[in-house]
Amino acid sequence: MADNTNTAGLAGVTAGKTAICTVGKKGVGLTYRGYLIEDLAEKAEFEEVAHLMLYGALPTADELASYRKRLIGMRGLPDGVKTALEVLPRDTHPMDVLRTGASVLGTLEPETDAEAQQHEVADRLLASFPSMLMYWYHFAHNGERIDVETDDATVGGHFLHLLHREAPSEDGVACMATSLILYAEHEFNASTFTARVITATLSDFYSATVGAIGALRGPLHGGANEKAMALIESFDDPDAAEAGLKQMLADKEKIMGFGHRVYKKADPRNGIIKAWSKKLAGENDYRRNLYAISERLEQTMLDEKGMFPNADFYHATAYHFLGIPTELFTPIFVISRLTGWGAHIFEQRADNRLIRPSADYVGPEIQEFVPIENRG
Amino acid sequence: MADNTNTAGLAGVTAGKTAICTVGKKGVGLTYRGYLIEDLAEKAEFEEVAHLMLYGALPTADELASYRKRLIGMRGLPDGVKTALEVLPRDTHPMDVLRTGASVLGTLEPETDAEAQQHEVADRLLASFPSMLMYWYHFAHNGERIDVETDDATVGGHFLHLLHREAPSEDGVACMATSLILYAEHEFNASTFTARVITATLSDFYSATVGAIGALRGPLHGGANEKAMALIESFDDPDAAEAGLKQMLADKEKIMGFGHRVYKKADPRNGIIKAWSKKLAGENDYRRNLYAISERLEQTMLDEKGMFPNADFYHATAYHFLGIPTELFTPIFVISRLTGWGAHIFEQRADNRLIRPSADYVGPEIQEFVPIENRG
Repeated sequence: MADNTNTAGLAGVTAGKTAICTVGKKGVGLTYRGYLIEDLAEKAEFEEVAHLMLYGALPTADELASYRKRLIGMRGLPDGVKTALEVLPRDTHPMDVLRTGASVLGTLEPETDAEAQQHEVADRLLASFPSMLMYWYHFAHNGERIDVETDDATVGGHFLHLLHREAPSEDGVACMATSLILYAEHEFNASTFTARVITATLSDFYSATVGAIGALRGPLHGGANEKAMALIESFDDPDAAEAGLKQMLADKEKIMGFGHRVYKKADPRNGIIKAWSKKLAGENDYRRNLYAISERLEQTMLDEKGMFPNADFYHATAYHFLGIPTELFTPIFVISRLTGWGAHIFEQRADNRLIRPSADYVGPEIQEFVPIENRG
Repeated sequence: MADNTNTAGLAGVTAGKTAICTVGKKGVGLTYRGYLIEDLAEKAEFEEVAHLMLYGALPTADELASYRKRLIGMRGLPDGVKTALEVLPRDTHPMDVLRTGASVLGTLEPETDAEAQQHEVADRLLASFPSMLMYWYHFAHNGERIDVETDDATVGGHFLHLLHREAPSEDGVACMATSLILYAEHEFNASTFTARVITATLSDFYSATVGAIGALRGPLHGGANEKAMALIESFDDPDAAEAGLKQMLADKEKIMGFGHRVYKKADPRNGIIKAWSKKLAGENDYRRNLYAISERLEQTMLDEKGMFPNADFYHATAYHFLGIPTELFTPIFVISRLTGWGAHIFEQRADNRLIRPSADYVGPEIQEFVPIENRG
């Protein structure tokens, strides 16, 4: 039996084995199946990383071509999913759109045999999440039933194409690929752990995914880049940002997008997405100074609190410069992290044990039952 | 930092504090907020226990009357939920019906302010789960759009009324009340723990519930009474059951409905539901010997393996004698356990910390990235 002290939030408690990812191990920031995140983000396509996550190895050129073709062929939505998405109001939290869409798809294309179907279900969700999200988005906002199938080579390109209803730019596609790689996997984070707890009851892939989406929806997990955007946008210029941030710190407000429970010195994903934010800032006339504001906020947090930006902070402006509405930031995280969730679902199934911790009881002692007529 | 050995499945690891429930503590079987399950099951109504779970105390007679009225008023379904339920095929896993219905309701009646709305959302789901399930059931099977609002005083009566389309019997209502009490809460079981992990990201009540349903769907958690029913039904008489079970044990097959990870000598819920199964068996002509078969299986498991029936085993025949189709057993568990999940969601929110364990890395060391043209 483990030591029961200091396990609040299970911080530092090992909940199982994994061969998928290291976070902050031996000073190396982040690895997926042994590959450094820097190598993957710089040299690979997102579909290569998805293949690495879901099939265990980086693909050959032939495998990548056929994997891309497979994903392209899985973008369509059944009528039942469309009907269900159409009932979701315009002000629906977009994470609830994916949560609902995945749940409905799980009834129309159920996973009844995990071993035979799990890879197909994972790929299907990866390919169709952008379709679900953007089908709902255009219907809820404009009443338009868009065609969700495009022939874009990449998942990120498909997403941008459906969002803007035009072929995406080369930079847009490349930035999305990098972003999707950076968010793909992060060991036993709360949403992945949720997926494993659900999977450990031998439930289906959709249930694990739906639960994981619910966890990622929470502002302490997935919503940080949206909160960072709101912060950055709230200032007119870098000087105002510095003054405003100092005031917030003096008021002990929580600043989203900085620090990390596992990383202590820096988030290895930050520099990579920061470079994209900087590059894209020049391409957009609107609020070009948002990048400068971000940089000043970063410097101020370092000077005042010794804190560093995590992966979420510069994602905010990078996405913004791609014309992505803030409310869609966390759903993009879902599209990416589905690959990590899938890898963990497969791994949990391969060596399963029910995940069932204990609790420290702090409630009342045995109470005598008082009949209802004598209460009050 | 906790001892990292032997924590597979987090068995014996304390994942947090709770004042809600004890399981197997100091030889006392099961308590909800300090009350013995035997007292609650024998002397209380399910709505009293729901009030105890969700509002912290057993209600007075006036409070119970007003709580019942409140629940009765929350049974209706918005059109959007009905539309979404209608797209779910007839062969949908009924747990996926509740998973989807709850997800859609969460978009139509969102929880945007946890403190102000969480009790209303919990009561709304408790009151409307039978409506969702039976609306889908009759539509999928007969194409009928039933009226889901009845004036039955109890949750169990509402469920039976919608299922059979006629006012339920007194025994039926009483047995359902007992069953819903027995299944209401069980500390950090996998579905409740799922709800807490999701809640700890500060996500909404619906997301936590949807995830919990996904966990309860798994045959290692919620499906045991369905499996027990299939086993019991597969035999023609008690002698055949004894012989068949011995053969299964010789073949090392897993027998569902027996034993428990936490209880070591007996499940305190078993005797209570067994009495209902025995009583109801006499009222039904069809396969009356199913009770006798169950008893023989119980005796055989004791003789051969020293194992005792858990809460699920006699639930199978009790539900069966009430005319409940086997596929709806686990959804009833959802209706009941929603009260326990709700109590844990509130408790987690009141003293929150992100639940984020670590993993023991057993994967490859750092690998050199090979460009795609050089792979294979």
